[in-house]
Amino acid sequence: MSSSFGNIFKVSTFGESHCYGVGAIVDGCPPGMALTESDIQPQLTRRRPGQSKISTPRNEADQVMILSGTEQGVTLGTPIGLLVRNKDQRPGDYKEMSQIPRPSHADYSYQMKYGVRASSGGGRSSARETIGRVASGAIAEKVLRERYGVEIVAWVSAVGDVVSRDLTLAPLTRDQVDETIIRCPDADASPRMEELIAAARAEGDSIGGVVTCVCRHVSPGWGEPVFDKMEAMLAHAMMSIPATKGFEIGSGFVGAQMRGSRHNDAFVMKDHGLGTATNHSGGIQGGISNGEPIVFRVAFKPPATISKAQHTVDFDGKSVQLEAAGRHDPCVVNRAVPIVEAMAALVLVDLALRQEYRHPKS
Amino acid sequence: MSSSFGNIFKVSTFGESHCYGVGAIVDGCPPGMALTESDIQPQLTRRRPGQSKISTPRNEADQVMILSGTEQGVTLGTPIGLLVRNKDQRPGDYKEMSQIPRPSHADYSYQMKYGVRASSGGGRSSARETIGRVASGAIAEKVLRERYGVEIVAWVSAVGDVVSRDLTLAPLTRDQVDETIIRCPDADASPRMEELIAAARAEGDSIGGVVTCVCRHVSPGWGEPVFDKMEAMLAHAMMSIPATKGFEIGSGFVGAQMRGSRHNDAFVMKDHGLGTATNHSGGIQGGISNGEPIVFRVAFKPPATISKAQHTVDFDGKSVQLEAAGRHDPCVVNRAVPIVEAMAALVLVDLALRQEYRHPKS
Amino acid sequence: MSSSFGNIFKVSTFGESHCYGVGAIVDGCPPGMALTESDIQPQLTRRRPGQSKISTPRNEADQVMILSGTEQGVTLGTPIGLLVRNKDQRPGDYKEMSQIPRPSHADYSYQMKYGVRASSGGGRSSARETIGRVASGAIAEKVLRERYGVEIVAWVSAVGDVVSRDLTLAPLTRDQVDETIIRCPDADASPRMEELIAAARAEGDSIGGVVTCVCRHVSPGWGEPVFDKMEAMLAHAMMSIPATKGFEIGSGFVGAQMRGSRHNDAFVMKDHGLGTATNHSGGIQGGISNGEPIVFRVAFKPPATISKAQHTVDFDGKSVQLEAAGRHDPCVVNRAVPIVEAMAALVLVDLALRQEYRHPKS
Amino acid sequence: MSSSFGNIFKVSTFGESHCYGVGAIVDGCPPGMALTESDIQPQLTRRRPGQSKISTPRNEADQVMILSGTEQGVTLGTPIGLLVRNKDQRPGDYKEMSQIPRPSHADYSYQMKYGVRASSGGGRSSARETIGRVASGAIAEKVLRERYGVEIVAWVSAVGDVVSRDLTLAPLTRDQVDETIIRCPDADASPRMEELIAAARAEGDSIGGVVTCVCRHVSPGWGEPVFDKMEAMLAHAMMSIPATKGFEIGSGFVGAQMRGSRHNDAFVMKDHGLGTATNHSGGIQGGISNGEPIVFRVAFKPPATISKAQHTVDFDGKSVQLEAAGRHDPCVVNRAVPIVEAMAALVLVDLALRQEYRHPKS
Repeated sequence: MSSSFGNIFKVSTFGESHCYGVGAIVDGCPPGMALTESDIQPQLTRRRPGQSKISTPRNEADQVMILSGTEQGVTLGTPIGLLVRNKDQRPGDYKEMSQIPRPSHADYSYQMKYGVRASSGGGRSSARETIGRVASGAIAEKVLRERYGVEIVAWVSAVGDVVSRDLTLAPLTRDQVDETIIRCPDADASPRMEELIAAARAEGDSIGGVVTCVCRHVSPGWGEPVFDKMEAMLAHAMMSIPATKGFEIGSGFVGAQMRGSRHNDAFVMKDHGLGTATNHSGGIQGGISNGEPIVFRVAFKPPATISKAQHTVDFDGKSVQLEAAGRHDPCVVNRAVPIVEAMAALVLVDLALRQEYRHPKS
Repeated sequence: MSSSFGNIFKVSTFGESHCYGVGAIVDGCPPGMALTESDIQPQLTRRRPGQSKISTPRNEADQVMILSGTEQGVTLGTPIGLLVRNKDQRPGDYKEMSQIPRPSHADYSYQMKYGVRASSGGGRSSARETIGRVASGAIAEKVLRERYGVEIVAWVSAVGDVVSRDLTLAPLTRDQVDETIIRCPDADASPRMEELIAAARAEGDSIGGVVTCVCRHVSPGWGEPVFDKMEAMLAHAMMSIPATKGFEIGSGFVGAQMRGSRHNDAFVMKDHGLGTATNHSGGIQGGISNGEPIVFRVAFKPPATISKAQHTVDFDGKSVQLEAAGRHDPCVVNRAVPIVEAMAALVLVDLALRQEYRHPKS
Repeated sequence: MSSSFGNIFKVSTFGESHCYGVGAIVDGCPPGMALTESDIQPQLTRRRPGQSKISTPRNEADQVMILSGTEQGVTLGTPIGLLVRNKDQRPGDYKEMSQIPRPSHADYSYQMKYGVRASSGGGRSSARETIGRVASGAIAEKVLRERYGVEIVAWVSAVGDVVSRDLTLAPLTRDQVDETIIRCPDADASPRMEELIAAARAEGDSIGGVVTCVCRHVSPGWGEPVFDKMEAMLAHAMMSIPATKGFEIGSGFVGAQMRGSRHNDAFVMKDHGLGTATNHSGGIQGGISNGEPIVFRVAFKPPATISKAQHTVDFDGKSVQLEAAGRHDPCVVNRAVPIVEAMAALVLVDLALRQEYRHPKS
Repeated sequence: MSSSFGNIFKVSTFGESHCYGVGAIVDGCPPGMALTESDIQPQLTRRRPGQSKISTPRNEADQVMILSGTEQGVTLGTPIGLLVRNKDQRPGDYKEMSQIPRPSHADYSYQMKYGVRASSGGGRSSARETIGRVASGAIAEKVLRERYGVEIVAWVSAVGDVVSRDLTLAPLTRDQVDETIIRCPDADASPRMEELIAAARAEGDSIGGVVTCVCRHVSPGWGEPVFDKMEAMLAHAMMSIPATKGFEIGSGFVGAQMRGSRHNDAFVMKDHGLGTATNHSGGIQGGISNGEPIVFRVAFKPPATISKAQHTVDFDGKSVQLEAAGRHDPCVVNRAVPIVEAMAALVLVDLALRQEYRHPKS
C-alpha cells in the first residue's frame, strides 16, 4: 500500500538510489491514447540531476523505457510498466555514514522501521524514488490535457528569505518557468535566489524554498468528500514528496488571519457559468473543484545532507563530527518543480476519472 | 472510498446535517479492549455545538450509541457501529439559500458534482459530518494510549492575528487546554482571541485561526514510505477537515527559509536511545517517526456562513444580496480541537498497526 | 478492510446476531436516483427468518431504516446508512455452547483469531450479518436495473441429491421462483426438496443444496483484468456468504472434462451485435462480460448447528456430547437466494461503474 | 486496481504476451529475509512453456531479474521489482485472427471493454501474464515457509474424465508431483491423462482438467470475516487465473448433497491442541483457518485456441472458418500447478500478515 497512489489511475513505484533501476506501473490509464517515451522524457529531463550548476553533479540521463501497456504507440488500457536505469552509482561515498545516521535524514528512522536499510545513498528515501512519480505524472498530465484541457504549471516562489512576487494570476508557461535555472519567473527575485544557493553551496550548506503550483481549466465537480477532498489529496500528494514541510491551498495560513466577509469568494457570472470574484478558496469549496484555478504552495526544507561539519552521535550514541561525502543538491526546489506538477497531475486525473460515473446534469 | 479512511483501523462515516443521524463504522479495532460509550462521549461533548457563547446556538446533546462490535463492554474485533441522532434541525432556516449558493461554502460545488444536494444546512459538507470522525478517533486514541502510551493534545494557537506563544514543548494536558472557552492555554493570548471572536460575531462576521497539535510517545518506525509517509497521512487527514487551508509539520514554511546547518536536528543520546537536540523535523524523518514528539499546525479559514450582507449571484447568475440565516459559529477553532485530535489518532493508530507485522530488531 | 466490499460502489457492514442491530453504509451510489425503504424491504423480507415452516422460527420483522444519504426519497450521492434492529434475541439458548465449540461452526476459529468472541448466536459469523448485504444489494440492483437494464434471478437448483432440471435458459422471474417455499421453480423437484428438508429437520439434522443465478442484459465490457475478473469477483462475493463450499461459472467442473472444440462458444450474429451460440463461458471471456447471460452456481453445505447429538470435545479437549439448542435452519438455500442475488448485484454494479470512465468506441 | 492483489503483501503486475517483458512489484514483503533470483526461478521454470512434449513449443527461458528491494541478497522491506523478458515473440502468427475474435478467448470482450487491443498473442489476457504472479508467489511462499512453516503443494487431479484417486491426505512433495510430465502423482491415472492430451493434440484440439492444492501447517486464526474470508480470497485468487471455471473448498459441491450430521467435522484433541476428525471444512470455519490443512480444487477449461477448424463469425458478423495458428497448449493444468501454488501463497501470506497486529491470547 505504501508505494501505491490513486484509485482508478493507480501508480505503484519501486526502486532505491543504487539498485538496478527505478520505475513504476501505471494501472488504469484510459485506452486508445497516443503514448510514447517522448511524452514522458521531458519532465524526467527537467527533474534529472546534473542539469545545472545549482544541482548535484550526479550524472544520470534518466532515459525512460515503456515496458508494457502500449502497442504501436497507443495505450491498451493495461498496466504501463516504466523503467529508468540507475547508472552513476558511487556506493563508496557512503561508507562512513553507514555507522552515523545523518541528522534530519531517514537513516535512523528507516533502521528503526525495517531493522535493515540500504547501505548507501538513501535507498528508498532518496529523491531518485521520485522518478517513478514524474514518469507516471507525465502520463497523467497527457490524459488531463487531452481529455479535459487541464494545464499544470509550477515554479519556485521562494528560496530562503527571497520571495517572488505573486504570479498566481499570470498565465505562466513552463517555457517561461524554465528561462532561469532556478525556475522562478520573477526577474528580480531569481538572480537573488541563485546567489543564496551559491552562497550556501560555497559553505557546504543547503537552503530551503517554496514551490507554487497552479492548475487551470479544472472542471467543477472533481474531489470526493469526505476524506478524499481535493485539497486533502493534494496535501497528501505533496507532503509525500521528500523534504516537504508545509502545504497551503488558496489563502493558506494567511487565510486563518482573515474575517469571513473578506475571505469569502463572491460568485459572479463568467463566460462558462458561475465563477468567483476572488480565489481565496484556491479553486476548491467543500473539497470539490469550483472551476477556478487550483492554487497551492509547498514548503521544502533545506536538504539534510551537507558537507559542512555537524556534531551528532553515531548509532551507538558516541559523539562524532560528520562531514558528509557524496553528491548532493544545495537546494531542491528547482528540481522539485516537475515533481510537484507530477503529483498534482496524479491527484487530478484520479479525481477526474472517479467523477466520470456520476455524469450529473447540474 | 470517499467516506472511508485508514487501512487496518478503517473508519467509514455517514450522515448529513439534517437527516436521521450521523455516525461511523470502525473496522479493525483490536479485540479484547474495554470500550463503552463513556470512552467516546467526552470528545463528542468537547466538539458539540452550543457549548459556549462563542459557538453556534444549535443545541445537540450528541449522545453516541454503540450499535455493534462490543459485548459486555469489550471489543470483539468486529466492526463497531456508532450512531448519533440529529435532533435540533431547523430546515426552514435554509429556504432562501437553496437558490443562492453561499460564497465559499460547498453549495455550488456539490451541485456541480452531484446534480442534486441536501436542501438545508450543508448536508454532507456540514461540520456535523465530523461527529463520526470524533467518535472513531476516541476509540483510536484508546488503542494508542493503552497499547503504545501515546498522548495527543491539540489547542488553539492563533485566532485572526492574535498568536499564542510557542507551547509545543510544554507538557500540556487537555484539562489545561479546556480552562478557557477558546481552548488556548496562553493566558495572555486567550482573552484577546475571545475578544476578536466576539467582535466578529457582533458584526455578523466570522474569523479564522490555527490549531497546533502535539503527539507524544510515538514509537520510532511508524509511517509507510513512499506515499503514506506519516506527514502525508497527517496532511491528508487534517486537510479533509472542513474549513482547513494549510498544514505544517515541524518547522513548516519557516523551515523553507532556513539553512540546512541550522535546520538539521542533531542526534543526541537520550534515556530510551537516540533522540534529537532540536525538532525541526516535527518527529518525522523520511516519512517515519523518529521517537520525538509529532508537532503540526492546521490553518482554519473563517466560517463561510455569515449573517453580514454579501453581494453575490444566485444559481441563475442574478445579482443578489445574501444575509445568511441559520445558526453558525463565528470561529471554528475551539470546536476543531477535538476533531484535529481525532484525525491525528486515526492516522497514528493505522500506521502503528500497519507497522506491527514487521517486528524488526533494530 | 474485512467488512467492506467494492471499489466505487462500496459497502461496509456491521453487526452481530445479538447486538443492537445490523446494517451497512453504501458509499458511491449514483446521485439523483429515487430510493426509499420500500425499494429495499422486499429482498430483506425474502431473506428474513421465520418466513416458512422450513426455516428457523426466530421471528424478526427485519424492517430497514435509511439513516442518511437520501432527501425526499432521492439519493444525494453521499453514504447511505442502513439499519435493521435485532429484536428476537434469546442469548440464554447459547449458554452450554460457550464452553463447546460447535463442530464446523466458527466458534473455535473466531476464538483463535480474536482471543474473544460473542457469547451467543454466532456473533459476527451469524447469517444475520447478511442483512447488510441484502439491503445494500437491493440498492445496487436498482442502479443496475434503471441505468443498465440488468435483471438478476437466483433459485434453488439442488437440495441434497435432488437436482432441478436446467432452467438457466428459461426467462424466470422472482415471482415464479417464490411460488414454492423452497424457491425451486421445477415443479417435479421442489416437493421432493421440501420432503428432504422436512426429513432432516425431523431428525434434528440439516442438509445442503445449490443455488443457481442468472444475470441478464449485462453489457459487454464489464470486469477488470487481471485480478478483478468478473468471475473472480463473483467467486469472492459468493464464497464470502456463510456456508458456501463451491462456485462454478458457466460450464464449471463439467467444463474441465470437455474438449475445446466442444467447449468453445462460437460467435454468431444476434440482434444487438455479436453473441455466442452456446454459453459454456457463462457470459464471461478473459474476465470480461461478453453480453451473454452471466450464469453461475453456488454450493451451500448443510448448516452446522443441529440438535442431533454430536460427539466432540470442549475448548479444554474434554469429550462431550453436544445437542445444540437455539433456533436454526435445517437448510439455508431458500433463504440464500436473495443473498446470492444481492452479492451478484454488488459485484456487477461495481464493475459497471468502474467501466464508466473508459467509454470506448468498440 | 485491476492488476493489484493483496492488502499488506501487495502485488502489482504488468505485461502483455508480446511486449518488452512481464513482471511485478511486490510491496510489503517483510524486511531482513534472504532473497535472490534463485528463490524465484524454480517456480518460473515449472511454469515456463516448452518444458515438455505436452506443452506449447514457444520457447522462453523466463529468467527473472530482481530490479529493486534487496541489497546483498536481503530484503529491505521496500518494493521488490521483478522483470522477465519476452523473447520468442512471433506476432506474425496472429495476423488472421486480428479480424476474427477467437471463440471463448478474450479477443471480443477486450475489444468491447477497451475499444483497442493487442494485435497478437492475447496481450494482457495471455497466460504470460501469470509470470508476475508466479514470481511474486515464490517470494510469498518463502515468507510463509520461514516465518510460519507453511507448505503448499498442488497437483493435477483430473484431465478430461480421467480422475486421480484422492491424495489430499498423502504428504506429497513437489518432487513427487514433478515425477510425471502431467504432474499427477497417481501412477495409474497419470499415463492415461497424458494419453488424453496427446490424443487431443493430435486432432488439433484441447482438453480441460482439475488442479488440487493442499496448504499444510496454516496457523489457526487466518482469514478476515466478513468479505475477506479465507475461502473467499482463495476463490477470488483462483478464479482470476486464466481458463478457470470452478472452485471448491473442502467438501465442495459434494458437501451440498450431505447432511450436517455427516458433514460436521467433530473436534478431537491433537498434539498442538484442538483439531478435527474429518476435514469437510477444508481447514476453514467461518472464513478463518482452524489449523487443519487447507484443501481446494480448481477447474480449468480446455484452452480456447485450437488449430482444429471452427465455424464462427468475424468482427463484422461474416461467417468464417477459423483454424488458429500460433503455438498453444493442448491442456494447461500441468503448467497451472505452480500458478495455483503462487496464488495460494499470495492469499495466505496476506492473511497471515493481516492477522499479526491482533496477537490474541487464545
